[in-house]
Amino acid sequence: MKRYSIGFDIGGTNIAAAMYDEKYDEVSRLSVPFPKDSDVYAVSKLLSTMKDSLAAEVDKKEIKGVGIAVPGSIDSKGEIVIDAHNLGFFDAPLLKAAKECMSGIEVAMLNDANAATLAEFNKGVLFGCDTGALLTLGTGVGGGLILNGRLFNGGRGSGVEMGHMIIAQDGEKCTCGNSGCAEALCSATWLISQGRRNFEGMIKEAADGNKENVSAKTVIDCAKAGDKTAAAIFEKYVDSLGSLVASIINLTDAQVIAVGGGVSGAGEFLFEPLRENVHKKCFFRTHGDILPAKLGNDAGMLGAALYI
Amino acid sequence: MKRYSIGFDIGGTNIAAAMYDEKYDEVSRLSVPFPKDSDVYAVSKLLSTMKDSLAAEVDKKEIKGVGIAVPGSIDSKGEIVIDAHNLGFFDAPLLKAAKECMSGIEVAMLNDANAATLAEFNKGVLFGCDTGALLTLGTGVGGGLILNGRLFNGGRGSGVEMGHMIIAQDGEKCTCGNSGCAEALCSATWLISQGRRNFEGMIKEAADGNKENVSAKTVIDCAKAGDKTAAAIFEKYVDSLGSLVASIINLTDAQVIAVGGGVSGAGEFLFEPLRENVHKKCFFRTHGDILPAKLGNDAGMLGAALYI
Repeated sequence: MKRYSIGFDIGGTNIAAAMYDEKYDEVSRLSVPFPKDSDVYAVSKLLSTMKDSLAAEVDKKEIKGVGIAVPGSIDSKGEIVIDAHNLGFFDAPLLKAAKECMSGIEVAMLNDANAATLAEFNKGVLFGCDTGALLTLGTGVGGGLILNGRLFNGGRGSGVEMGHMIIAQDGEKCTCGNSGCAEALCSATWLISQGRRNFEGMIKEAADGNKENVSAKTVIDCAKAGDKTAAAIFEKYVDSLGSLVASIINLTDAQVIAVGGGVSGAGEFLFEPLRENVHKKCFFRTHGDILPAKLGNDAGMLGAALYI
Repeated sequence: MKRYSIGFDIGGTNIAAAMYDEKYDEVSRLSVPFPKDSDVYAVSKLLSTMKDSLAAEVDKKEIKGVGIAVPGSIDSKGEIVIDAHNLGFFDAPLLKAAKECMSGIEVAMLNDANAATLAEFNKGVLFGCDTGALLTLGTGVGGGLILNGRLFNGGRGSGVEMGHMIIAQDGEKCTCGNSGCAEALCSATWLISQGRRNFEGMIKEAADGNKENVSAKTVIDCAKAGDKTAAAIFEKYVDSLGSLVASIINLTDAQVIAVGGGVSGAGEFLFEPLRENVHKKCFFRTHGDILPAKLGNDAGMLGAALYI
């Protein structure tokens, strides 16, 4: 009998899902808009319908289980979504609801950064690592850790919050209320805010004179094209990211630090100066590699399926 | 037959050593000045002599082995002291020399912060932890990690360098060449330099008007006694230390963070505001405890013995 796993990656905009075979090769995929203002029962019913669509060609008995990746904090038992503000879920019993809607199969839930880390560990750039980290640079800064050859969910089961390591105390305000968190300085959001604050030269041109049009990519593209203002912003960004990566390496001595998320799309334009910056800041003479994450947006759903 | 272990803690001033029984209760102890400007062979001969003194009352066959804690970086195989500047050892083959001088028994070497962590884990405040950290606040800032219930020596075997996590990029220069490392801001050295830089009021009195007399304790005692200058320095110190501890917790979600070293002697005058500061900066609603280390200066030699 074949055994299939299904992974859901719930985001504030879409729910992405895929079914995988035993080798975790993709069999089918699906994406639907996230139903805003729904409770966990409505969302769970939707997940159940999606599961049936994904597995339409397959004997129900062949479905091993369903993994659900959620963008937020989860209690240590993996049952309650403590806080996923993009979904509007606070202290929400998503696992219980999902189990009720999909009875008879295994259901498990994990944080989306952990899911992506698990995916990179099994099929991506962290493959073969005993100790590795994934950093995702998007609207926020997330990440996950592989320690002793398995996913590490924090010593008390609360997860890992790399985005809230403090790299510049007394620095910029973070969404969490602190100052100088990595998330405040290494997110796409920081690049955007800086591009808007320094709205001149090529950045202004590229955004057709409208600040609202400035994206992280705008700033990066202008820096690539040689605009001095954009280049200075990007240099500062790389310096902050270098501090974060160096701190992670100085604490964990990781073999590989994988970097994913939107900003990592800058490619070697980011990775080359980043490696140089981190090397300067690392305490160890030699240290692990800093490599682009491999699985992109599919990492969340693959990792969710792998978690089963 | 009984089995004894011997632990050496080599420091730039003294070599401390103790012999322990099977329960790691101390049987005998010894301390001699560190012979400056000696090579690893001369030091190893001294260690061998010390071993014989410690074990004078014991059958040689009952000596299980010898552990050596070294204040510096060690290669991933635990053989070479890469850099222990207080000892004048650079790329020095201490393990080989010690094995030659103490043939017939097991000899192993580890970093002194790792040794202290192992001791706190086995007989101190980290006992029973699955995930815990020890931070030592002295001339520098060191520390070690317990992960998955055992000593973690870094993903590539390079150790753990908590003192070089960056908490204030663009901040004060660190001895390592970077800026804003925890060591630059959370060491006793920082308290001393600030006390000398703000040489006034009670600090000046306590030091008899001589800057050279200012110690970390001077600043702490003056802060305790209500001196405003000293209190402001200490408050800034607690804030920096809070950033470091919060970063470690946000990355590891440790169950216990133990704090030792000279500055921890300030007791609850340090721990109370530190806990408050860390709680404010922690991403998790609830988090691990921040507790004073238990074993003091004996942690290094006990940990070395435990490492065998």
